[in-house]
This record gives sequence, C-alpha cells and structure tokens, in this order.
Amino acid sequence: MINPLYIPEIREMLAGHDVAGLKEFCEALHPARTADFMEGLTPDEAWEVLSHTDHERRLEVFHYFDEDAQVAILEALSRADAAALVSELAHDDRVDILNEVEPDVVTEVLSLLPTEERRDILHLQSYPEGTAGAVMTTDVAKFGESMTVREALDRIQQIASELETIYYLYIVDEQDHLRGLVSARQMLSSIGKPDLHLGELMETGLVTAEVDDDQEEVAQKVARFDLAAIPVVDEERTMMGIITYDDIFDVVQEEATEDAHRSAAVQPLEETYLKTSLLTLVWKRGIWLTILFVAALLTCLALQRYEDDLQAWKWLILFVPLVISSGGNTGNQSATLVIRDLATDELGLGDWGRVAIRELVTGLLLGSFLAVCGLVAACAITPEARNAWAIWVLPSTLLAVVVCGSTVGAMLPLFFKKLGLDPALMSNPFVAVIIDVVGIMVYMNVAILLLPPV
Amino acid sequence: MINPLYIPEIREMLAGHDVAGLKEFCEALHPARTADFMEGLTPDEAWEVLSHTDHERRLEVFHYFDEDAQVAILEALSRADAAALVSELAHDDRVDILNEVEPDVVTEVLSLLPTEERRDILHLQSYPEGTAGAVMTTDVAKFGESMTVREALDRIQQIASELETIYYLYIVDEQDHLRGLVSARQMLSSIGKPDLHLGELMETGLVTAEVDDDQEEVAQKVARFDLAAIPVVDEERTMMGIITYDDIFDVVQEEATEDAHRSAAVQPLEETYLKTSLLTLVWKRGIWLTILFVAALLTCLALQRYEDDLQAWKWLILFVPLVISSGGNTGNQSATLVIRDLATDELGLGDWGRVAIRELVTGLLLGSFLAVCGLVAACAITPEARNAWAIWVLPSTLLAVVVCGSTVGAMLPLFFKKLGLDPALMSNPFVAVIIDVVGIMVYMNVAILLLPPV
Repeated sequence: MINPLYIPEIREMLAGHDVAGLKEFCEALHPARTADFMEGLTPDEAWEVLSHTDHERRLEVFHYFDEDAQVAILEALSRADAAALVSELAHDDRVDILNEVEPDVVTEVLSLLPTEERRDILHLQSYPEGTAGAVMTTDVAKFGESMTVREALDRIQQIASELETIYYLYIVDEQDHLRGLVSARQMLSSIGKPDLHLGELMETGLVTAEVDDDQEEVAQKVARFDLAAIPVVDEERTMMGIITYDDIFDVVQEEATEDAHRSAAVQPLEETYLKTSLLTLVWKRGIWLTILFVAALLTCLALQRYEDDLQAWKWLILFVPLVISSGGNTGNQSATLVIRDLATDELGLGDWGRVAIRELVTGLLLGSFLAVCGLVAACAITPEARNAWAIWVLPSTLLAVVVCGSTVGAMLPLFFKKLGLDPALMSNPFVAVIIDVVGIMVYMNVAILLLPPV
Repeated sequence: MINPLYIPEIREMLAGHDVAGLKEFCEALHPARTADFMEGLTPDEAWEVLSHTDHERRLEVFHYFDEDAQVAILEALSRADAAALVSELAHDDRVDILNEVEPDVVTEVLSLLPTEERRDILHLQSYPEGTAGAVMTTDVAKFGESMTVREALDRIQQIASELETIYYLYIVDEQDHLRGLVSARQMLSSIGKPDLHLGELMETGLVTAEVDDDQEEVAQKVARFDLAAIPVVDEERTMMGIITYDDIFDVVQEEATEDAHRSAAVQPLEETYLKTSLLTLVWKRGIWLTILFVAALLTCLALQRYEDDLQAWKWLILFVPLVISSGGNTGNQSATLVIRDLATDELGLGDWGRVAIRELVTGLLLGSFLAVCGLVAACAITPEARNAWAIWVLPSTLLAVVVCGSTVGAMLPLFFKKLGLDPALMSNPFVAVIIDVVGIMVYMNVAILLLPPV
C-alpha cells in the first residue's frame, strides 16, 4: 500500500536541496518505514533521496523497497553505479532482483562485476525455483576448527557489517565440508576463554538442507528445529550457503498462498493479485474453470439419463442443487482439513486408515443430522414429499452423499500425495465434480428404488 | 509421526541400566531428533532416559517433545520435580504447557514455585489467546543505557544460557521503558571498544508490538521488517516481553490453517486434525454445514417458483448444476485470491475500486469463453437447445453468472473486512450460496425472456 503522505514534502526538500532534512528523513525511522514512505517517488528521486545518507543506511533502505522499485532503480542508475550497488546487496536478494531486470542491463552490469561475484550470481541463478539452492544466500561466515575464540572474534569484527547473519558461525574443513557450528550466544559466553578452539566449542549433529531440497520441506525443518538459519550443503556436505529465518517467513507465506490458490482452482500466481496482469489472471483461472466446466458436463449427462424419472416425479428436481451442495460442502471440508495437515506435516500417508475411519464416522453423524433437516425441509416445501416412501428419498440421499463426500474428500488428497503429486493440486475442485455426479446418481437411484413407478 | 525404530533398543538399555548408552543416545543427535526418537515411550520412561544427560540437554530435548508428551511428563513427575522443571522452561512455553495440565496439578506445582515466577505465569496466562501478550516470553535480557560494553559482556556471560535469545539486547530506563536495542552483531563488533556505553551504540526507532495486538498483525510486522525478535510493550512503552522468530513461524502456520479451514466452512480447530476429538470435529463442521444447508434451501424455493417454466421447457433442467457450479467456481476463485492477499497484507480496503474493475473485466473474459463452451455443449447435448432463441439461453446465463460470481466473490471478503470481521470468516461458503440462488434466477429469467411461451 502506498503512503502518499510524505511524498510532497520529500519533493520539496529535493527541490530546495535540503541536505539536513533529507538526511534526517533517511535516518530517523526504521529503514523499512523510510522505504514505505518513499513509495510513489520515481526511481531517480528515490536514489537522490538516498544519496543523502551513508552507504550502509542506503543499502538497508533499498533492501526494504518492494521488488518493482528495486528493479526500476537498478535500471535507472548508470551501469557503474548499478554494478556497485549489486556487489553490495545480499547474495540471495540480488539474484531475485536481477532475475526481473532487463536482460541487456543485466549483461552490462554483470560484465562490470569482479569475476568471483559474477560467478556467484550465475551459480545461484542456476538453481531451479522452489529449491533450497534458489533461496539460500552465499554470504556466510566460515571458520576453521583450529581457530581460537580470540581469532574468531577479531575476524567477526572485520566482517560483521557485510554478513547477513552472525547468529551462527559455521565451522568447515579445508575443503569447505561442514563440520559444526558455534552460536553467537556461545561466542558471547566464551569471550572469557579466548584460547579455546572453535572445534572444542562447536556443536555437531547439525540439521542441514541439500541444495535441491524442496523449499517447503526446508521451511518445515527450520520451523520444527526452531532454527535462525539452516546451512545448505551438497551431496558431499560441502557448505554451499545458508537460508535465514526471514527467507523462511517468505517461503511459508508463499506456500500457504499457493495451496490456497490451488484448492480454489487457480493456477498459483507468481506475483500478488494486484500485480498480476489481467491476461495472466484470466489464463490461470480460465484453464481450471474450463476443466471444471467440462467435468460439470457430466452432471448434464447424468440428469439426461434420468429425464423420464424426473418427469414422473417432478418435485425431485427441486432438491438437486441442495443434494449437490451438501455433498460438495462436506467434501470440501474434509479435503481442506487433510490438505492443510499434510502441508504442515501433521499428517502422513501412513495415517490413511485412521483418516478413513474418522471420516466415515464423521460423515455418518453429519449425514444423519442433515438427513433429519432434509426430512423436515422436504415436507415443508412440497406436499408430494410427504407420501409414504417419498418421505425417505431426500434423507437417504443426503446421508449417502455426505458420507461419500466426507470419505472421498479426505482420501483424494492422500491419493494425490501417494502419486507424488501436490495434494492441494486439484483435490477440492476434483472432489466437487465427483460429488456432484455421484450426488445426482445416488439421488435418482434412491428415488427409483423407493418410489412406485408412475 | 511416531518413529518406533529405537523404542525397543531404548527399553533394553533402560532395563540393563546402560548408563553410557543412554547418555550417548541423549547427546549424539540434535535434541529435536532425540525427542522424535523417544515418541512412544511412557512419560516415566522418557524422563528416566533424560536423567542420563545433563540438566541443559534435558531441557532442550524436553522442549522438542510435542505438547501432549510434555503435559504427560509434568503430570507424572513428583510435584517438586515438576516445579523444578517448570521453573527452568522458557516463560512462554511453560504457560502453554500448564494450560493443558490438570488444574489440581497446576495449583500444587504453582504453590511450590517462588512468588515471582508464579506471578509471571499467572500474568502471562491472563492475556487472551491470539494476542501478542499470549505469545510473548518474559525471559529477556534488559540492560541500562549507561552500561559499558565490557559490563554488558560480563553480564551476558552469566545469563546467556538461561535466555531464550540474545540476538538483541534491549536497552531500558529505570522504569523498564524501552529505549533502544543493540544487536548481537553490534556487540560482537564492539568487543574492541569495551568502554563504549550501550546508549551510544543502541539503535532507536524500534519496531514494537503492543500486548493486545492481534498475533497475525505482529507476524506480518516481523516478516515485513525481517526481525529475529520483536519487543512487546504496553501503552506506556514498558517492556513486557519479546516474541521470537520461532514463535512467529507457528503463528504464520496457525493463521494460514485457520484461514484455510474458514474458507472451507470449518470452524478452525485448536488441535491438529488427528488430535481433534470426533465430536468436536462433527460440531465444528456441523454448524457450518447446517447454516449452508438452510441457505441452500433458497435454491429449492427458487426452483419451485419457476416450476411451471421448467415444465414448459424441460431441457432447461439439465443445465442447472452446470450453471450453479460455473458461478460457484468463479466466485470461489475470486474470494480466495482476495482473502489470501488481505491476509498477507498485499491488498487493503483502499484497493476495492481496482479489485472491482479487475474482477469485472476478468469475469467478462472468462464468462465469454465459458459462454462459447456452453453454446457448443448445449447444442451437443440436447436438440431442443438448437432452436432459434433457445440457443442463446445457456450462453447468456453463463456470462451473467460468471461476471456476477467474479465480482461478488471478490467484493464480499472486502465487505467483511470493512465490517471488522475476518474476511475468511464466511466468504467462500457465503459466495457459494449467493451465487447458487442468483444463478438459478438469472437462468430462469433469461429463459423466460428468450423462449416463446408454450
């Protein structure tokens, strides 16, 4: 959300070359708030404002701009300034930003960077989206086992300002294989023992992620182990980078959003709703709507099959949407409960038996209750439902459909997971279609069974 | 998930009094893994295993047990041992655990604790569920402005092992009002300047939460500002506690789960799916199913109103479920997109105009496409739809219903938010019911308009 409150004032200060005022604006608030208040400035203006504070603060505020603004500034700067800025950014952030910058600009900027940095960027870019490698940063402090506490503290003082995090010092051997870690807390507690070797202080038995691990699994691990950062290693346990808690926040939000979108039959968006172009939105919704439309045609065919019966007992038609929606709602509930607990790892494939029994019982209880409601409703709405056997058609159907919705809704996500697919992928819409068709068939067959031929 | 792999071995070691083996089991792995491997032991066994390692490790492993196991152990211990354990636990964790322990046991344990700790527990318990106060911990390191770096480092060495976090040192005045913070990184970088006062080193302009802030807002703030911990203050800026990133992970997951449940018409569960009792599950689903059932009765009444028309043009009935589901699916998509971006703060009430226009355009495009699909489908399924005006009934209805689903689906969550309600509260089910009824009415009225009276 844009905060246009300060924009005119900032522009006035810029026009009046109010150096002191601009410096104060840059430094008085938390850098994230400064960044918020600058939303709405042009890239040139924003950069000019930031030229009034020191180097470190400039980077901090820039860090909190949203990605579009960062990209716009990078593209607006001279190539040399852009390269200088890129080389200062956190290693994971700059890759995310460069991925959105014009390719021509990227090429020029990369050519101005030292070889090592260019290689680092290209390397990080090579990890597929959604893997630990793509989320990690490579600016991490590595220390040798034989280093003493005193030496380590000296080194930290030199590099602290450049590093994204020093919650943990990672201990590696000469080939960069991860051996252990020393936490900042341990470091601070060990200041009195300057000759202690890090190797004696370090914890082993670390929790690590591999570069090609799925980011969702990594996030679950970090949350389970309450980590501030997780080291990322390759198959040989070479230390490749770290993922910090703040990136995990983003991953958790991203995955929850993806699952929510999937379960509402929207192909997950890469941007926020407002930033996604209309055509992309139409496409990502349209493909699923079309698939669901085709599937819903089955309900037409089902109804067509029973056209004569519907003619014979005209009142049946009144309750078709009710039957369908009761089954669909129950199925949707079950699917969502299972999908969410699969996503947060509270539920596994091994639990399918328990889930099935629970859903069967839940379905029977809920179905029985809705059956009673249905009995009352049918009698109230149409006199024809009050006769002999007719009175049982709607209640029996509701019971059957709710039990079916409940079990199918819970089993489908597990089945998808078993197949190695994302359980959130299509379960809810799929459940809906299946239950719709099943609902109609159950309803008509119950009617045929119970009602006298006309 | 239970890891029964090691249980027989552990029991064998316990029976054989294998002190060295049990000690190694407790200490070789990350404490969270040790905890995982112990799932399935009785509370007495678990505690006996942990008696083979030192005090600190015991607490660490206990921390990673799931809450049920923690509660069972506390209840199984002698009251004195339980009190000793409680007084060592993190201040926020112990409140969560005690909330689940038998009230009699809690009373006895509390009576054995020092007054100050008892007061702290009762105080934390008094904050309502879902507020910052209920999530925060009170074990936090507070320092004075006039303290020097050397004095602070000395103090940290004394207390480091007791504190949950020392990512930040919080600087307070004599009345405990929050004045600023010094990060662990700054501390480590300032070891060379031992006479510097913390007041000179500290950052001001902090991001804080108030005790009664909603936990979801706090989580958004922490994520936005990339914080490892956020200080919680009262109206007078008195420092009450902190919330650390690991608790924020839990909040983010919890809120995403709640929203997912709400949008599938399940009253949010307090436990995981498998841990929730069947009756609770039936109740939390049943109330919403019943509300939706009653709402769905409106579709019966709508169909009843048009009974004569449906008799006149019998083929119309075939497409009722298709019309309903097309509108419902579109509405569901829009509602979910808006709800998710409201939850992650990417969208605000001020954006309603943009959202409305986007949804109108999206609805028109999607509706037009489905209208074409509907034209083809209707002609294929029934010859009666191929005549003169009849051919336009289904396509026009689909267009109208999809546009309506799209706009209503997006606007309802915003409307709920405007009313101060949770946008996820009832939007999806509500949307479904509204669209179902509107769908039937649009369909029948289009038919009456276009078709010749029979």
